[in-house]
Amino acid sequence: MASKKIVGEREIIETLLGRFERMQDMPIPFGDDVSAYPLNGDQVIVLKTDMLVGKTDVPPTMSLWQAARKAVVMNISDFAAKGVKPKVMLISLGLPRGLSVNDVREIGDGLNAGAREYDAYIVGGDTNEVADLVISLSVFGIARKGEVILRSGAKPGDFVAVTGFFGKTSAGLKILLEGFKAPKNVRKTLIESVYMPKARLKEGLALASTGAVTASIDSSDGLAWSLYEIAKASNVGFLIDDPPVACETKKFAEINGLDALELAFYGGEEYELVLTVKPHLWSKAEEAVKKAGGSLIKIGKATVEKQVILEVGGEKRVIEPRGWEHFRKN
Amino acid sequence: MASKKIVGEREIIETLLGRFERMQDMPIPFGDDVSAYPLNGDQVIVLKTDMLVGKTDVPPTMSLWQAARKAVVMNISDFAAKGVKPKVMLISLGLPRGLSVNDVREIGDGLNAGAREYDAYIVGGDTNEVADLVISLSVFGIARKGEVILRSGAKPGDFVAVTGFFGKTSAGLKILLEGFKAPKNVRKTLIESVYMPKARLKEGLALASTGAVTASIDSSDGLAWSLYEIAKASNVGFLIDDPPVACETKKFAEINGLDALELAFYGGEEYELVLTVKPHLWSKAEEAVKKAGGSLIKIGKATVEKQVILEVGGEKRVIEPRGWEHFRKN
Repeated sequence: MASKKIVGEREIIETLLGRFERMQDMPIPFGDDVSAYPLNGDQVIVLKTDMLVGKTDVPPTMSLWQAARKAVVMNISDFAAKGVKPKVMLISLGLPRGLSVNDVREIGDGLNAGAREYDAYIVGGDTNEVADLVISLSVFGIARKGEVILRSGAKPGDFVAVTGFFGKTSAGLKILLEGFKAPKNVRKTLIESVYMPKARLKEGLALASTGAVTASIDSSDGLAWSLYEIAKASNVGFLIDDPPVACETKKFAEINGLDALELAFYGGEEYELVLTVKPHLWSKAEEAVKKAGGSLIKIGKATVEKQVILEVGGEKRVIEPRGWEHFRKN
Repeated sequence: MASKKIVGEREIIETLLGRFERMQDMPIPFGDDVSAYPLNGDQVIVLKTDMLVGKTDVPPTMSLWQAARKAVVMNISDFAAKGVKPKVMLISLGLPRGLSVNDVREIGDGLNAGAREYDAYIVGGDTNEVADLVISLSVFGIARKGEVILRSGAKPGDFVAVTGFFGKTSAGLKILLEGFKAPKNVRKTLIESVYMPKARLKEGLALASTGAVTASIDSSDGLAWSLYEIAKASNVGFLIDDPPVACETKKFAEINGLDALELAFYGGEEYELVLTVKPHLWSKAEEAVKKAGGSLIKIGKATVEKQVILEVGGEKRVIEPRGWEHFRKN
C-alpha cells in the first residue's frame, strides 16, 4: 500500500517523536534545543546532536576546514542559547571516497579549531564512508537543571531581544549561490558570515548567570521561525517594533532591489540568540552581555495575542511562521 | 598540489587523531570503544557515537525497522564490551528524499525497540536530508572510572574468551548478497544473525561486576581484528586453541566448499564480546555470565609473543590482522 510521502523535516520529527517511548521525569522535554539526563542532586547532563550535510549546509566554495568548524558552531550555538557550557564532543564522520590526506587533515583541524574556540575538547568519534560529506556531532555539558534556559518560559510583557543583527547569511548565500552583487566591504562581511559563523556562547553564559532570561533559542532556522518556536512553547505572541536588520543587509537589499526585512526574518544558518527578558532585569541582562563583549538588542515584547506582528512606522504586518529551508547544490 | 589518496577508515582515524588537541586527564584514551568525561569523585560520563550507513551496513533486503534497530545495537555493543549500562541516546538521522510516513514510522519504531530492548531511552535528536540513509547515534551512561573495562589490561597467561560462536553473519551475508545456499534451518539462523543482531549487554554487565576481566572489546570488526586490537593495546599476543566456530557456519562452509575458520575469524558485524580473564577468576566469570543467561567460551590464552596464533590438531597458523570491510551494494 502506498503511504503518504513526507515533505518536511518538521513532519519527520513529529512522526518520529510519536514512536519513542518517553523516559519518566525527562529534565528537558523533547523539542527544545538540547536534551538532558538527571545526574546527582539537581545536576543534569546536557546533550545535543546535530548533523552537517555537505549538500545542504556547505556552499560549494566553502573549504573543508570551514565546513568542519561550522559543524561545531551549529552545535555549540544550541548550548549558548540554553546558557550551558559545552565540555566535550564526539564526532561521527561520513566521508566521501577519494578524499586526500590533506582533506582529512583540514577536516580534523576545522573540528579542533571549532572545539577549542569554545573551550571544548573532542574526546572520541567514528568514521564511515558516505557519498556526501556528513559531520554529526554530539556535545555534552553539565548544568544545574534550573539554570538551563528553555524555550517555554516567556511571559506577556517580557522584552524580546537578540544578540546581533540579522540577514547577513541570507544575503551572503545570495552572493555565493545566486551571483548577487555587493560593494567590496559589504560583500566581505556578508560572505564572512556564511564561512565563519560564530556561536554566541559568551553571551549565552553571561545571560544565564543573570536570571533575567525567561526563554531562549538559537536562530539557526531563521529569526521568524525562532520567534514562533518561543511563542509556541511559551504560549505567547510577539510584537516586534525594532527589527534587527544588519546595515550590510540593508545596503545589499537596496542595491539588488530586495526586501531587507525578508532577508532578516526568513534567512537562516545565522547563529544569534533570540530570547525574552524580564523587563525589570533588562539592564542587568544588557550589562552582562556587554561585559562578555557582546551586545543585547531589544526588538520588541511578548504579547498575550499569539501572532508575531511587526510594527514599523505605524504599519503592522504579520510575520509568517516560515523557517529557513536548507539550500541544495542541485 | 595533489595529496595522497586515503584508502582505509583506520588511516582516516589516525590522521584525524593527529589533529585534535588532547584534553588533560582523559579518563579513557582515544581509540578505545567508548570515551569518557570525568564527573564528581571517581564517576565518569561514558560516551559513544557510531554511524550506520545504508550503503555499507544495510543489506538490500533488510527492513528499515531492522536497520534502525541495528544502529542501536551497534552502539550498545560497545557499552556491553566496557561493562557500562547505557542510559539515554540521541539520534541524528540523515534520510533520503521521498520516504513515506510509514518508512519514518518504521525507523522510529526500530530505534525505540532497540533502545528499550537494552533498557535505554531516546531523549533527543535531529534529522536531515542525505542521499543515503545515515543513522548516527550517541549513547550515554555513567560509571565508576575503575570499572570501565579497557582494551589495554590483558596480561600474558590470561584466558581469552568470547560470548558466542562466530561466522554466522559472514555466512548470512554470503547468502543474502552472493546467493550462497544453505539448508532451511541453517539458513534461517544465519540470516537472522544479520537482520537481528544482539548486543551482549547482560553478559558485559555481569562480567564487569566480577572484577575478573582484564581487557574487552566488541567483535564488530571481526574476531581476528578484535584479538589484534586487544593485543596491540595490551602489548600481548594470543594463542587460540579452540576456535569458536558456530555449527551453522561449519555446515554452511562444508556445503559451499568454503573455509569455516575464514568465515569465523574475518567476518564482522558480529556483536560478541572478546575478552581476557584472570585465570584464577575464570569460574567466577563463567558463572556470572551463565547467571545472566549467556555463556562464556574459552578459546585460548594471552601470550608474551605478540602474534595471534591458531593451533588446531597440532598445527599452527598465524591469524592475520585483517578486519571486516564493509560491504557495498554497488
